[in-house]
Parts: sequence; structure tokens; C-alpha cells
Amino acid sequence: MKRREFAGSIIAAAAAAVLPRNVRASTASLAAPLKVNGARLNAHLAALAEFGKNPQGGVSRVAYSDADKASRPYLMQLMRDAKLDVSVDAAGNILGRRAGSDASLKPILFGSHTDSVPEGGMYDGDVGSLGAIEVAQSLAEQNITTRHPLEVVIWQNEEGGLWGSHAATAVLTPADLATVSRSGKTIREGIAFLGGDPDHLERTRRAKGSLTAYLELHIEQGGTLEQEKLEIGVVEGIVGIHQWNVTIDGFQNHAGTTAMNNRHDALLSAARFIEAVNRIVTSEPGRQVGTVGRITALPGTVNVIPGKVECTLELRDLDAKKIDGLSTKIQAEAKKIGAMNGTTFAFAQVTDNVPAPTAPAIRAMIAAAATELGLTHKTMPSGAGHDAQDLAQLCPVGMIFVPSIGGISHAPKEYSRPQDITNGANVLLNTLVKLDVAP
Amino acid sequence: MKRREFAGSIIAAAAAAVLPRNVRASTASLAAPLKVNGARLNAHLAALAEFGKNPQGGVSRVAYSDADKASRPYLMQLMRDAKLDVSVDAAGNILGRRAGSDASLKPILFGSHTDSVPEGGMYDGDVGSLGAIEVAQSLAEQNITTRHPLEVVIWQNEEGGLWGSHAATAVLTPADLATVSRSGKTIREGIAFLGGDPDHLERTRRAKGSLTAYLELHIEQGGTLEQEKLEIGVVEGIVGIHQWNVTIDGFQNHAGTTAMNNRHDALLSAARFIEAVNRIVTSEPGRQVGTVGRITALPGTVNVIPGKVECTLELRDLDAKKIDGLSTKIQAEAKKIGAMNGTTFAFAQVTDNVPAPTAPAIRAMIAAAATELGLTHKTMPSGAGHDAQDLAQLCPVGMIFVPSIGGISHAPKEYSRPQDITNGANVLLNTLVKLDVAP
Repeated sequence: MKRREFAGSIIAAAAAAVLPRNVRASTASLAAPLKVNGARLNAHLAALAEFGKNPQGGVSRVAYSDADKASRPYLMQLMRDAKLDVSVDAAGNILGRRAGSDASLKPILFGSHTDSVPEGGMYDGDVGSLGAIEVAQSLAEQNITTRHPLEVVIWQNEEGGLWGSHAATAVLTPADLATVSRSGKTIREGIAFLGGDPDHLERTRRAKGSLTAYLELHIEQGGTLEQEKLEIGVVEGIVGIHQWNVTIDGFQNHAGTTAMNNRHDALLSAARFIEAVNRIVTSEPGRQVGTVGRITALPGTVNVIPGKVECTLELRDLDAKKIDGLSTKIQAEAKKIGAMNGTTFAFAQVTDNVPAPTAPAIRAMIAAAATELGLTHKTMPSGAGHDAQDLAQLCPVGMIFVPSIGGISHAPKEYSRPQDITNGANVLLNTLVKLDVAP
Repeated sequence: MKRREFAGSIIAAAAAAVLPRNVRASTASLAAPLKVNGARLNAHLAALAEFGKNPQGGVSRVAYSDADKASRPYLMQLMRDAKLDVSVDAAGNILGRRAGSDASLKPILFGSHTDSVPEGGMYDGDVGSLGAIEVAQSLAEQNITTRHPLEVVIWQNEEGGLWGSHAATAVLTPADLATVSRSGKTIREGIAFLGGDPDHLERTRRAKGSLTAYLELHIEQGGTLEQEKLEIGVVEGIVGIHQWNVTIDGFQNHAGTTAMNNRHDALLSAARFIEAVNRIVTSEPGRQVGTVGRITALPGTVNVIPGKVECTLELRDLDAKKIDGLSTKIQAEAKKIGAMNGTTFAFAQVTDNVPAPTAPAIRAMIAAAATELGLTHKTMPSGAGHDAQDLAQLCPVGMIFVPSIGGISHAPKEYSRPQDITNGANVLLNTLVKLDVAP
């Protein structure tokens, strides 16, 4: 067995002690926590960040963009280096498979995504994707064979609405496939662009109960872990996310000749709406959030009163009932706002992801792995959506968070420390081992 | 003399009575109001509306667009048909000249513009441009020679900021020429695109006092004349227009993981700002107006808190001091709004057109011409900016308004009745005659 040592790691030495050179190990024989090669993992992260790099830092690697496509041969080569059998499924997800010692067991799936929001960071998704590959490479290098088959996955288009994991867990309708993504391509076009086969998505779908578990390592994307000086987050569940496209119709007119009391200004109504969303969401105790992230005013000229505004509304909470209550209040308030100046609001819901709890048994394994690695940890919700929430419909899932400095994400300044990333991959590796040996 | 009669016009018959066939007439010899060919004028309007026609009606003939350029040979042919000597000046304005009987007199300039806002109407600018050409053609057909040289002008890019008349009345700086217009072209590129010569704009400039007067016919673009059932507006002055680009800097972050009390949401600040503009502008009596017409939120994604917003602010009034007072209040309020959630506002003024009064003597001539034509009229301000406000720096100016149905303008539903358009051209023709014979 040939492996790179990384400096200063006591546990790596301990792991090496239980793994005699040139002897194949099984997970059951491991007495101390295993370790990944953190330096290599962080080097891979830096290399991946070259694809779609922003001038101001971070990446713009929107799903189905040229940058997204260009990064995939690199990712697939890393998987091959990790001794994984690489394939692209019908939905365009990248899979890397490794056999286990017991062919009767169902696979353990683990991974994340590598697409980004426009002007996003280089950690969201990338840490979990490269962390999963690093775990596979560490197992291969350390000659460890798991009982379960392993599958590393890189889901496509997580940021645009979890499309890759949707394809694995649900039937995409023709309307789904016709949805225009941020790249300008439809989902169908994007799948084909990535080398998938949108006419045979049934080949991508997994049956309920066909997986032992799904694990995902991810940056927290919030500031809790850093503020509380903790190293690992054990995710208790993923919030439900409801999104709407909101259309406000007013009356386009000349900004110089139309008296103030004679206007049907769609942008003024939009402004009152945005303020109301903030006011209503913050009027109740709890961790719910509400956001208007996108807005277009038409025709969009300095000297014309906007006749139409299109914007988005997003509400998130771990409690689906709370989301419904807020949405009812907001839509009622919008109606009142519209009546103030003769404009009308229309809401078209585009996403209604239900809250997804993680499996208590896996939470316990993650916490135990962190403890054994000497890492502080806490149980916490995920305010962000993740592919794990789709997988929760098929199998037990677990999610591991590492700190985001300043709580910054979906932005060029998104940052996680190299040691935290290494910690997360180590927890992923040891959680996988615990899952593998669990009865 | 060969001329088309238009049905039902008593005054046309009267005018014909004072104009013996085949005899050249001078303006001094005219005893009754002259008339244009209204049917022809309205047919020209319909023909011009084919250039850049919107599917939903009206036109999108943005300055320097292909539609703008395509319309110009048609306009120049109409001018030639009206016996005008046609040229394009260094700024890209179209000029049509006609000699007077007294070469010592300074020219009377009259016209308007033919560019539109995006998804605008087919009357704004077009009525005054084609009305001016129709007046020239009527004079030619009726064999009337004025004492003064006449110049019909079609100013380029009025909607983007009166660029054609700016070039005639001021020195355009390199920064002016580098301004990016709505077409995507800079002003310099736009001038060259229209066949002008941006390196020799001094050839376009008129000296103060070099013109006898400037006249412009235009649709009202407001609802006053229609509501009061009046036929002609005698413009007392053009409001000052101040415009700003407003930049709001917040902090871009993840919309799911960033708690409500930890956000620096630039779009929430923009919303409060838009509401404040409306509140402050309507808090004082008067005819002032304030508008936010354009807004961009970055990065503009449903699941990202906007880190930056760019929007516009426009204030208009006949009183420059009132504009200054409102702007001071609005900027102070913006500072408070920014402080509420850790965002900052920056205001960059892009336009500060001063209010421009029209010449009382010309107002009296317009009113007299309307009365002689049997048309009801009132004196009123122009809430819209016009090229006439630039010309007011060089010579006495006069403006004639005709009703806009429903007060709608800068929109596909902009409409003025054919008879009102004909009335306006008749008033323009007879005001010109009065100016010509004035001592």
C-alpha cells in the first residue's frame, strides 16, 4: 500500500497502525478513526475553482453553462484516480461506483453538486463533491473494502432546483423538462448538453428502499458554527422551500405628464410588497426566512412609469404549516397593496419542497464520528435546500456541515477554512465506515 | 397651383379664396387662417408607425436602433416632397431648409423627434415631426413664400436625453459622447450610425441669437386637455428634469441560511426607498412628480439575498427650487433607510435640465392662431421634457400641445385623434405665419 502521509496527524498514524501495508482491510477491523488526505482535498478544491472563476473571487459555474460542462472531465478524472467506475446517468449526474464485499447489500450513496449560483462561491457543493471523491480515494489508498457497494454522485443543477436528484427520485414531467434554467437552456437541453439522455430518465430513477443510505457533506452557508466556535454540524433536517413567481400589473405611462394621484405604478406596488414580506416574516418568532431575490420592472426606463413588475418570493422553514401561514398573510397583504393604486398581484408557485428530516441513527453516527475525531459539534437545521431532501424520500439520509466564515454563501466571499473542510471529509469517511458495519 | 382639398373645411375654402391660383403669395397677404392637408398628415403618421411597429401596437423605435435608422430615408423623402433641401447635420439631426424672401432674416426652426421609448407609442415626437413637414408642404403647395428662411428639424435621440438638440445648443464632452444609450451604442457610435460626424459637432452648434424662433408641436402626454375637453394647449414652460442613478450596496448572501436579522438586503432598502420617493413627492401640494422607472437587483436569483441594487430616480417640476428641496429630503431619507439594515446609498446625478419658460409673445400668437381657427385652448405647463427646452437657451420658443386620449403616453396605447393632430398642425402653420409677419 502506497499512501501520502499528511503532516502532524496523530490519528493518521493511528489509522496507519491498524492497517498493515499490503494487506486488504475490511471496515470491521478498524479500531481508530480513519483520515483523508486533507492537503490533496484542498488542492482539488482550488483546481476546481478555476472552472468559471469570477474576477472578484469565487465562481460562476451555473448549471449547463460552458464552465459547468468544462469542469466535468476534471471531476471524472479525479473519480478514476480514486478507482471508481465512472458513468454519466440519463439525467446528466456523474456517478462513480466501487464494489463492496457483500453483493447482497444495497449501495451507500454519497456526494453533492458542483454547479453554482451566478457569482457564487467555490465551496457550496464543491466541498461535498470533492470530499466524497477524497473519501473514495482514501479508502482505495488504504486498501479498505467496504461491505456495501459505494456510489459517489455529483448531482447536476442543484442551484436551479435540485434537478439531478429530482430525476433520481421522481418522474420529471414534460413541463419540468421545458423549464428554462438560469443558463438559458431548458432542463431537457441542459441534460442533453451534459451528455445525459432526457428521453430515458427512467434509467436514472432509484426505487424506494434501493439504497442503504445517502450521506452529504456541505458547508453550513450560515454563521452558526463559526459564531459558536464549533467544528461540525449534525443536520437534523432540511427546511421546506416554497417559491413563487409574482407578477404585478399596473399601467405604463409617461413619468413627466402623469400626475402622482393618477398612476398605477407597478414598481411602487412591488416596493410595498417587498417591505411587507420582510415585515410579515419577521413578525413571528422562529427561524423562518422570506426573500425577494429577483425583480424586473418593465419597460425599465428612467422616464416611464413601470406598467409591469415580475419578481420572486421565497419562504423557508422546517415547519410546512408555518410556511403556509406566512404565504397566506403575504398574499392577503399583496391584495391590499394592489388595491391602493389600482394594480394587481398574481402568484404562481414554482417550488414547494417539503421539510425533510434526517435519520436519527445516522445523526448519531455523525456525532460519534466527530467525537472520535476530537471535533466539537452540534445538531442544527439546514436553512438551505440540498439534494439530500430528495433522497430522504427513498432512504435514510445524513448531512454533515462545516463552518462558513461570516456565514457568507452564494457570494464570491464564501469561505471555509482548509482544516474545517478536512474535518468534514474525515467525519464523512468515518460515518460511512460506521454505516458500513452497522447491522 | 395644384392642391388636394380636404372635405368639410370652410376655412380651407377661405384660405383658397385669398390665394389666387398660380400666383405666389407672401405671408403678409393672408387674411384668413391657412390649413394643412390633415388626411395626408395622418396617412404619413400611419406609414411612419410601420418602422419599429410593436406587435401590441405603438412603436419601439429606440434612437440608434435599426428601426430608427430604417425610418430616416422615408422621412427625408417626405421632406424632399415638401420642397425642402435635406441634409443630415454632424450630430445626426435631419434638416430640411427652405429659403425666405428676405435673406437678412434669421431662420425660424420648427420640428420635433421620431425616436421612441421601448414599447412606446406612435404619436410622441412623430406628430410634431410630420406636422412640421406637412406645414412645409402646405406652404409649398399653396405657393406661399415666407420672409424668413424656414428650417424643419427632426432631432435625434430625444427620449434618451435630448441629445440632438444638446448638440445644437451646447458642447458635448467626451464623457457625453461615451454615454451608453438605450440601444447599447454610445452617443458617439449612435451619431456615426445615423450618418453624422461626431468629430465635428461644432458644425451643428447654433449661436445664441442666430434663430428667430423655435416652434414645436407635440402631443400633451397627459390627460388635462382631454379631461377639460380642450383642443389646443399653449405651453407656458417645460418642467425641469433631474435624474439620478442610485446605487444601493448591501451584502449578497444565501437566502436560506442567513437569519432575517443578519441581512443587509439591498432590495429591501430599494423597496423602502421607492416607497419614500412616492411619500415625499406627494407630501407637498403642487404638480411635481417623482418616479423610479428602472431597477436591477444583483445577482438576481430567487435564492440569493440581493447584494446590490441599481435604480433610477427622476424628479420634475416647473420650479427648480422645489426639485432641489425634494431631492434633499429624499437623499436624507435614503440615508436613514440604509442605516436600518447596514446598506449604503449613492446618488449620481445624470440630468439636471432646468425649467424652460416659453416666450410670452409666441404664446400669444399660438393662442390667437387657435382662436382664429375656432379651436378652444388653454395655457399649461409641459410635464415632459422636449427639445424646445434646449432651444430656449438660444432663441424664443413656443410649443403647441394636442390632446392625448386617456393621458397615456410612452406606451403602446398612446393615442391622439386625427382631427386633433390636424388642428395642431394648423395652429403650427398659422403661428409660423404670425411669427413671419411680426415686426
